[in-house]
Amino acid sequence: MPEQPTPHDLPAIGGLPLGDDDRRRLDFLVAAHALTGVQRLNRVLDGSRGETSAEHSWHLALTAVALAHHAAAEVRDRLDEVLQMLVVHDIVEVDTGDVPYYDTAARLAIVEAEERAAARLFGLLPAEEAQRLHALWHEFEAAETPVARFARALDRLQPILVHWAGGGAVWRERGATVAHELAVVADVEAFCPELGPLARALVDDATRAGMLTG
Amino acid sequence: MPEQPTPHDLPAIGGLPLGDDDRRRLDFLVAAHALTGVQRLNRVLDGSRGETSAEHSWHLALTAVALAHHAAAEVRDRLDEVLQMLVVHDIVEVDTGDVPYYDTAARLAIVEAEERAAARLFGLLPAEEAQRLHALWHEFEAAETPVARFARALDRLQPILVHWAGGGAVWRERGATVAHELAVVADVEAFCPELGPLARALVDDATRAGMLTG
Repeated sequence: MPEQPTPHDLPAIGGLPLGDDDRRRLDFLVAAHALTGVQRLNRVLDGSRGETSAEHSWHLALTAVALAHHAAAEVRDRLDEVLQMLVVHDIVEVDTGDVPYYDTAARLAIVEAEERAAARLFGLLPAEEAQRLHALWHEFEAAETPVARFARALDRLQPILVHWAGGGAVWRERGATVAHELAVVADVEAFCPELGPLARALVDDATRAGMLTG
Repeated sequence: MPEQPTPHDLPAIGGLPLGDDDRRRLDFLVAAHALTGVQRLNRVLDGSRGETSAEHSWHLALTAVALAHHAAAEVRDRLDEVLQMLVVHDIVEVDTGDVPYYDTAARLAIVEAEERAAARLFGLLPAEEAQRLHALWHEFEAAETPVARFARALDRLQPILVHWAGGGAVWRERGATVAHELAVVADVEAFCPELGPLARALVDDATRAGMLTG
């Protein structure tokens, strides 16, 4: 007679009558779903809770779609790579949690842990897909190719948009400064000059509205 | 002197010194972010809360990436369309909320409301992008093209995976039947035969484990 699983006694992928590759793909998808449990500093717009990294990843992909107009032609032609990159870019946080971008010391300290997490999580997939997505994640982190630089620009711009649209509540609580947010604008400009004016308009408006500290 | 906005006095896109098209793109992205406030029946894996439609959309895009191997070559070549479609497929829920797929009467009643929501939300974008994404949403709903049929198969398969991986808690609470879930399997098979065995393996295992009612 089958045992009744409790919510903490989760079903085993290994028991499914599927080929090893398909079991690995499902195992990866189940493991990755835990990104819904990682809370970021960003809030949802009514301020009631943190945005999860899963939600951030979705909104970032949507941002890529809505702002693709500003990407170089060679990047627009590879929008599938941009979207795949954004969909997997935060998956390591399943193991490491979210380390805010502004916390430079913590971000440096976590590089090795993120490498281990990427190896473990992408390694759940069949070898060919594991290698491809792991490489795509490295490409995002290295920020050297046009695809990765557009993706990185979006990843810097999206939090500005969400903080601004939420009335700057998180910026105020954290005492975020104009200088700090202008440095984020500079990052956006460096990664993708065409997106610079959007980032600058948001930070300038936030400055005028008193959302940031002098 | 600028007024201090409260969390309910959100900044105005119209005040940003950007071209009209860019203001429209940002307006769309801010409006769409409300998808983080739409709760689905699906739970996150520890059962603590409902998955939001934003999280579902992200996990569905990730599922497309992980299972692209099973798509026809013509669909794999258009993975960017699949991903864009999945990223926008639930956006109407910003206005209508989530209506569970199994609630047939409610789903029929909501068709007009979803059409109005699509017109309003995609209509926030510049005309060309509005038209393109609105058409992509219609393509998903109509489920006639190979791209849309693959996307629809994933949208039916992903909840099975999440319910199963969560130990079937939502299925048990709802008294979901084997017959109902086999109908979902039939949908997956009809939309994409290659994904049928995955759906069937999960529902068969759920049946064996007593997650579904006779």
